[in-house]
Amino acid sequence: MLTREQNKRFTEVGPGTPMGELLRRYWLPFATVRQLHEHPTRAVTLLGEHLVAFRDRSGRYGLLQEHCPHRNANLLWGIPEPDGLRCPYHGWLFDRAGHCLDQPAEPPDSTFRERIQARSYPVEALGGLLYAWMGPEPRPMVPRWENHVRTDVVREIGWAVLPCNWLQIMENSMDPVHVEHLHSYFSNYVQERLGQIGPDAYLTWRERANVRRHVKIGFDIFEHGIIKRRVLEGRDETHADWRIGHCVVFPFMLLQQHIRVPMDDSHTLYWYYTVHPKLPDQPDQRPEDIPLHEMPLPGLEDGIPTWELLDSNSGQDDFSWMSPGPITPRWNEHLSGTDTGIILFRRLLRDQMRLVAEGRDPMNTFRDPTTNISIHMPGEADDPEWSGEAYRSLLRALTTRADASGELASIAIANFLVTF
Amino acid sequence: MLTREQNKRFTEVGPGTPMGELLRRYWLPFATVRQLHEHPTRAVTLLGEHLVAFRDRSGRYGLLQEHCPHRNANLLWGIPEPDGLRCPYHGWLFDRAGHCLDQPAEPPDSTFRERIQARSYPVEALGGLLYAWMGPEPRPMVPRWENHVRTDVVREIGWAVLPCNWLQIMENSMDPVHVEHLHSYFSNYVQERLGQIGPDAYLTWRERANVRRHVKIGFDIFEHGIIKRRVLEGRDETHADWRIGHCVVFPFMLLQQHIRVPMDDSHTLYWYYTVHPKLPDQPDQRPEDIPLHEMPLPGLEDGIPTWELLDSNSGQDDFSWMSPGPITPRWNEHLSGTDTGIILFRRLLRDQMRLVAEGRDPMNTFRDPTTNISIHMPGEADDPEWSGEAYRSLLRALTTRADASGELASIAIANFLVTF
Amino acid sequence: MLTREQNKRFTEVGPGTPMGELLRRYWLPFATVRQLHEHPTRAVTLLGEHLVAFRDRSGRYGLLQEHCPHRNANLLWGIPEPDGLRCPYHGWLFDRAGHCLDQPAEPPDSTFRERIQARSYPVEALGGLLYAWMGPEPRPMVPRWENHVRTDVVREIGWAVLPCNWLQIMENSMDPVHVEHLHSYFSNYVQERLGQIGPDAYLTWRERANVRRHVKIGFDIFEHGIIKRRVLEGRDETHADWRIGHCVVFPFMLLQQHIRVPMDDSHTLYWYYTVHPKLPDQPDQRPEDIPLHEMPLPGLEDGIPTWELLDSNSGQDDFSWMSPGPITPRWNEHLSGTDTGIILFRRLLRDQMRLVAEGRDPMNTFRDPTTNISIHMPGEADDPEWSGEAYRSLLRALTTRADASGELASIAIANFLVTF
Repeated sequence: MLTREQNKRFTEVGPGTPMGELLRRYWLPFATVRQLHEHPTRAVTLLGEHLVAFRDRSGRYGLLQEHCPHRNANLLWGIPEPDGLRCPYHGWLFDRAGHCLDQPAEPPDSTFRERIQARSYPVEALGGLLYAWMGPEPRPMVPRWENHVRTDVVREIGWAVLPCNWLQIMENSMDPVHVEHLHSYFSNYVQERLGQIGPDAYLTWRERANVRRHVKIGFDIFEHGIIKRRVLEGRDETHADWRIGHCVVFPFMLLQQHIRVPMDDSHTLYWYYTVHPKLPDQPDQRPEDIPLHEMPLPGLEDGIPTWELLDSNSGQDDFSWMSPGPITPRWNEHLSGTDTGIILFRRLLRDQMRLVAEGRDPMNTFRDPTTNISIHMPGEADDPEWSGEAYRSLLRALTTRADASGELASIAIANFLVTF
Repeated sequence: MLTREQNKRFTEVGPGTPMGELLRRYWLPFATVRQLHEHPTRAVTLLGEHLVAFRDRSGRYGLLQEHCPHRNANLLWGIPEPDGLRCPYHGWLFDRAGHCLDQPAEPPDSTFRERIQARSYPVEALGGLLYAWMGPEPRPMVPRWENHVRTDVVREIGWAVLPCNWLQIMENSMDPVHVEHLHSYFSNYVQERLGQIGPDAYLTWRERANVRRHVKIGFDIFEHGIIKRRVLEGRDETHADWRIGHCVVFPFMLLQQHIRVPMDDSHTLYWYYTVHPKLPDQPDQRPEDIPLHEMPLPGLEDGIPTWELLDSNSGQDDFSWMSPGPITPRWNEHLSGTDTGIILFRRLLRDQMRLVAEGRDPMNTFRDPTTNISIHMPGEADDPEWSGEAYRSLLRALTTRADASGELASIAIANFLVTF
Repeated sequence: MLTREQNKRFTEVGPGTPMGELLRRYWLPFATVRQLHEHPTRAVTLLGEHLVAFRDRSGRYGLLQEHCPHRNANLLWGIPEPDGLRCPYHGWLFDRAGHCLDQPAEPPDSTFRERIQARSYPVEALGGLLYAWMGPEPRPMVPRWENHVRTDVVREIGWAVLPCNWLQIMENSMDPVHVEHLHSYFSNYVQERLGQIGPDAYLTWRERANVRRHVKIGFDIFEHGIIKRRVLEGRDETHADWRIGHCVVFPFMLLQQHIRVPMDDSHTLYWYYTVHPKLPDQPDQRPEDIPLHEMPLPGLEDGIPTWELLDSNSGQDDFSWMSPGPITPRWNEHLSGTDTGIILFRRLLRDQMRLVAEGRDPMNTFRDPTTNISIHMPGEADDPEWSGEAYRSLLRALTTRADASGELASIAIANFLVTF
């Protein structure tokens, strides 16, 4: 349970807030390469700031303040040029650094443009995502997470704008036991609501669903964040679930797959980043060709939950993130003995905010190229047995599906093949 | 004309407000039995509080705070169990009293659940409606209004959420003369707008519509509220309209048919409760089988009133309730000589608020079972002549319709058969 | 660049604000005759006040406060009578001066109605538009702009509600050079986005579009507002563009065609008033027959601009008006050497606000009937050569179209035929 004041400190992400200052020390993925190939501008909200992303005609990316410094026309309608983005209204041209390169209606000898500076943020592309740097210089490197840089895979990306603060999403990732209930017991109930099983089936849910109870959970801070471990009923600490565990990457990523970028205090841009093994004859995938899909979110229809979207882990997690409201009121919460991961994550956030306040680099600041080549993260999939089994089943799945449709693996199947 | 401060006192219904405290001394119908049979949970707003109603698998009803005390997941998605409602997120189980019966992820010997208490309100079912008690204990009985308990009828229930404060709805019920204009003169104009009569018809409206002017109106406080009386042109005080009159039941019911439950300062849950005589061979009606329909509300389309919904008393009253805005600014009103009923109702509210402030029971608190068996209310229909005529015409109507469709009486016909 | 305080002073239009007081010295067109012939009432917002316009059964127009003074029922649902508008609720009848003529439920000898006064504003009809006077008496005359009174034309009227403050619309009209970019360079880009030209066409846009650069711009205050002048590349000061120029009519009209009426601080009612020469055999056009159409506004679909609406001057100007937001933050602007017209217009507004504060009539107050007969405004079309050419092409266009459909000239063609 936090006070209202503490909750503000953990959830406010705008300029000048302690959490906002911490988050500005991370490269923030705000769009995909594909999005700016399909349309050369895109409205972006990051850490409470409204911005316009663009791709110039030379193929370079920029991120500018939303409104032209001249007379506030919206640059989302801007015209891409070889060296920047031009405002439709009077043709002022801005490069990626926010310099004004041209003011066509001013006299040729005018120096007025030199006194104009648009707010701008550096952009880098990696693994099909576009990242913004909103922090101080000198800026570090974009982290080269293994799945974002390896060349033996094909990728697909899902996205959604979640109408809630980023932290309640991360707290869900620090909470292993919800799997038993939200993703298992509740799944059965969703089937009942959808008419797929009868109203008496609940008598045997726990048995039929073969849910393994958590016997033990544990959390370790490691160099990139927090490793979550669990021992399920009938297993012990030699199982990969405990021995290896899997990672929450500080501050806003789960594994290398789920990225939750704070847009403002009550909206989060969610990237669902999936990789599949590339088949032997499959050509390299260009970043702009990575399949992209918007993920639907469950909600209400006539006051009744839309059960159709709640029969998958994704929809169920969406529920757990959004249903507490835009900013969950932590002064009402009652943390239990299984919420130790959440408490640890908050402590880590507090420590890292303090580091930033002291002018130091927080966790996951990469400044040494030799350690930022392809960052592997331990995961259950590192277990040779698990991995072999998964790989074989993946190949079977890919073969079957390729026969049927030639399409990439569906998200549903890819879900448990995060790393391989 | 009230001051702004007085208007706030009359219209604010949240916890701790004087009017909210008065209203918490009444059982509040918040849903129908049928609704919770069709879906086992339902979002409910009452007196400014957001709640979740549920029906457990044993068929009992409960009303809990909207969000789980653990980490604020919304219980509208909750799983009904034999003894309560289970949160989807981590499986915490709450009974109807808000006790936490189970926390499946906690150790078997944990006593943590004993320290968890969800806000909850007692629920009772009567006549197809579910009532909540949000006041202090010991709670009184749910009033057994005759039409809600008699067994010789079949019922049907309409409902709507009105985007306005409850009091402006009740004030309309304290105002007999609007019938002449809103329900008669204006009805003719609606016909003109719908193209059913020509633009010159207005010259003879008053004559053609055969509107009887009010010669006299009167109001008496009686044990359950206020009796309204009227003498129309061509009649005298021996007519049932004056001699018997009809009742506004304190604080939020008209006759036993129109119930206006304050949801918050600017929303009202409206129940339109109708009874029809049961035909000789008709089986008993189970509460969950009472027909239920949402009533459409008139509004605007492209800035023009939706005239189609304004040709009935219902739509016309809706207009009079909603069109002053969410909370009518009584500092702009100019009460006339025909508004004495409204002034009396405000005085009664003020008196009853004072009673509650003094710790006493307000009007219509039922604590004696011998006086709460089947509460009859005087009405014009008690007049033997009127009643006989009405009953005969009802039977005719029912027969005709039963031949055609086998359906229950339409609301339109039932409208003047409130009691019989 | 204005301070926030200065920006408020220029953009707030409600009662009691300096700009609101200035604007209340002008007749404000709030509806068309046709609109009140089609439906006898209409919701109107002017200078921050919510009103109801009506046409009584004698064909006269009125403008009353939105809510009945009795108990706040909305008069938009009011019943037109021969001598006013009647409230549906209790039949109170108001004439155009806000006097209460009838309270049918009050005793015949009651004088209560004499103490009731609804807020009302005088209305006059001219050229198919209805004008309100919201300023002090004695009121001046409605200006008889030539195009609004001449009898040798037919008219058509477009309208839109723009979600932005009126002043940013007017500032666009004081800014000649945007034509080069917004209406020319950007037009080409819109064609690219619509797939009508290829992505390399931008290399030759400026040449292909044959845009003439502005060599010189100038502004003169004249009796009715400001004359804008320009010399385009390849022309000189003998060209009508400079010699005659065209006019911004103080305070909210461009030429006699574009009228921008402030509804509140962030909404503007825009009238697009067009005249065409009446053909020899064409009958006189009654005001209620003037064609009326609502103009669609460009916006976003799935975060992408709706390019389809941006390939015309209208859509492009809409963009420039709306895209800075509801009230453009002038504390962020950076005015350049080509913004002298904007600076002049702001100075003129400031001067006229001061005049009003001193109790004097501002610019364009017409009190002398001999000077308010048919007010001609200088324009490029006064140039005999330009005018002749335009007239001939108009006749051709009308003939062609009349053959095809018998319809009036489309807005697109009429656009450059503002005056003839």
